[in-house]
Amino acid sequence: MEPPLYGPKTYDAEPARDPRLVVNSKEPFNAETPPKELVQAFITPSHLFYKRNHGPIPVLNDAERFHLIVDGLVTKPLSLSLDDLKRLPKNSVAVTLQCAGNRRTALNEVKTVKGVGWGLGAVGTAIWGGVFLHRVLELAGIRPGTKCSAAGGRHVEFESVDRCKEEKGGPYRASITLAKACSEDGDVLLAYEMNGEVLPADHGYPLRVVVPGVIGARSVKWLSRVTVRSDESQGFFQQRDYKMFPPSVDWDNIDWGTRQPIMEYPVQCAVCTPAEGQCIRTGSQVTIKGYAMAGGGRSIERIDVSIDDGNSWTEARRLPPSVPETIGKECGEVSAKWCWVLWELDVRLTTPCVIVAKAVDDSANTMPESMSSIWNLRGVLNNSWHR
Amino acid sequence: MEPPLYGPKTYDAEPARDPRLVVNSKEPFNAETPPKELVQAFITPSHLFYKRNHGPIPVLNDAERFHLIVDGLVTKPLSLSLDDLKRLPKNSVAVTLQCAGNRRTALNEVKTVKGVGWGLGAVGTAIWGGVFLHRVLELAGIRPGTKCSAAGGRHVEFESVDRCKEEKGGPYRASITLAKACSEDGDVLLAYEMNGEVLPADHGYPLRVVVPGVIGARSVKWLSRVTVRSDESQGFFQQRDYKMFPPSVDWDNIDWGTRQPIMEYPVQCAVCTPAEGQCIRTGSQVTIKGYAMAGGGRSIERIDVSIDDGNSWTEARRLPPSVPETIGKECGEVSAKWCWVLWELDVRLTTPCVIVAKAVDDSANTMPESMSSIWNLRGVLNNSWHR
Ligand SMILES: [Mo]
Ligand SMILES: [Mo]
Repeated sequence: MEPPLYGPKTYDAEPARDPRLVVNSKEPFNAETPPKELVQAFITPSHLFYKRNHGPIPVLNDAERFHLIVDGLVTKPLSLSLDDLKRLPKNSVAVTLQCAGNRRTALNEVKTVKGVGWGLGAVGTAIWGGVFLHRVLELAGIRPGTKCSAAGGRHVEFESVDRCKEEKGGPYRASITLAKACSEDGDVLLAYEMNGEVLPADHGYPLRVVVPGVIGARSVKWLSRVTVRSDESQGFFQQRDYKMFPPSVDWDNIDWGTRQPIMEYPVQCAVCTPAEGQCIRTGSQVTIKGYAMAGGGRSIERIDVSIDDGNSWTEARRLPPSVPETIGKECGEVSAKWCWVLWELDVRLTTPCVIVAKAVDDSANTMPESMSSIWNLRGVLNNSWHR
Repeated sequence: MEPPLYGPKTYDAEPARDPRLVVNSKEPFNAETPPKELVQAFITPSHLFYKRNHGPIPVLNDAERFHLIVDGLVTKPLSLSLDDLKRLPKNSVAVTLQCAGNRRTALNEVKTVKGVGWGLGAVGTAIWGGVFLHRVLELAGIRPGTKCSAAGGRHVEFESVDRCKEEKGGPYRASITLAKACSEDGDVLLAYEMNGEVLPADHGYPLRVVVPGVIGARSVKWLSRVTVRSDESQGFFQQRDYKMFPPSVDWDNIDWGTRQPIMEYPVQCAVCTPAEGQCIRTGSQVTIKGYAMAGGGRSIERIDVSIDDGNSWTEARRLPPSVPETIGKECGEVSAKWCWVLWELDVRLTTPCVIVAKAVDDSANTMPESMSSIWNLRGVLNNSWHR
């Protein structure tokens, strides 16, 4: 008998997808939001939200039998059905997720990088509905605010049911610290809803983790198990991927053991419209639009835009966060703490011009001017000035 | 009758100072640690720790009569003597303090900035002993973890007794959020000891605030009052100084009201030895030494050093944090979470060479390559690549 939730071996049962998505890889399906759609609305529609996969999309064939296992260094291991989870207090959190590989393709200009190519659309904002992880961990005997459990747990591993080639057909796994998982300010959610509707298959149906302020790689989809451990996940994506390396490290001299897994992402900003290479009549009035955000719940202090390749800068205007009425009814008021800022600037363009954008966060962190100093073999965390 | 703690109007009663300090301004006394002394030890000796003042050093003339006032939007206003404070549980926290103006002088190369000149020595690490602010606020009726008090308090203002010219002879004031003040992880301390000894006059005797991870400007010295408020401090140093501006803003177009006060500082790194302009024989073996740190409790992921003006980079080696035995006995084990990393790199130098250093923090934040993009009229937060 098949398990109630399982990862198929083939791509025969993939869900339907929006034809507007920019497809970077068909199998596994990896696709991003077109830049102009990103800046249409503060909340990204689920069907246009970027899809990041490492294998065929898992299938829930028996919702009654599905249980989330909570185990490891806890005092009371749990097995929770979807109904059990839905009976717990429901919370909605607005979170911008960004793939660590967002803007990867551009890094190839410096030197070839390895990984699925991504433009600037491996990012999106949704309202996620579900139960706070700290509440579930409390049921398992670990109180909110715990950094180290009584049994020595310091990390929380999330396990999926998908079959990843990087894991030789095994499931995707990743972990975060117990401190983040148990923090009442951390807002880590076990989500069963996205934008006021049932979580779509591409986004982890029936259950996923959403870790605010952290690279998307830790927000594990098709969640089947939550394990409290003394050490980090030993999975591929925690130990052999999603780490930071200097430009001097390449495949012939890499030592994965020397680095920490990436968690919070750095300050980021990109121009979405006008599109790259778009023809614009000299002297015409144009509204430049883009996004900016910072990891770890840090806010955006300022967005600077240049239309003369960085010689002079003008500050962009922020658009207020807004939630569609239909979603708002379902989710109530949400904070924009974990979200991007959409911004605009009206300019009169002269040809040829190079538009550049950069942002500063509330801790005065800035974006690097060029890609050469942050190039890395896996092509992650490209937050250079966007031109 | 003079109050028990007061700020004199003249500079006749200044404390004795170490002649090795580099004096940037005599009255008020502003002086920094020589670069080579910075990298001598993980803990900076108090007499060599940078001194940052805005008026004559206050005098405690009657320790018996001194009381710290805790008032504002609290349920139980307090008046605590030094003995009252010392009877509360004592904690020791190792904290690197950095003036927002550290490395200001270099910014003048881009365009003149206003403010006391500082090289790279307006930074230092000490072990501070005292009582956690959240404990004192709890006595005043505000529980740990509070972000908004029952009476609507969201900020905590600290008031000194010094006489600052910027305040037209009034005292230095600054504020932090109530969330940071009440956070048990925030480690905000009311300190009466520095490096295991009584707090020196230059560092706030008898009592100062130490706000870890945040620019030195919020760690108010000669503390006389802690006030919970609905809004930020309206003092000069919160509202008309220590804010971030883009290079395009100068004294003729500044609008202070549009910006947030600076709190956490960005990732920082500097070379301390060899000294700038030092003559070194070609081919000689040299150990480059420096410091690196990030605000907000973020850790240093990596330190990159170049001896060819940034064309190629080598990773520096971190020195383990170490506390002198005499101080360790007094303070017990302390965490290095809020501290700098001292680092070293052995190289063979060829002339003429330009040494450059930069660091990356655990959120992948980097330092800007040049000063031109971060120049600001007050010359704060210079964290460009250090050459
Ligand atoms: Mo990712
Ligand atoms: Mo400062």
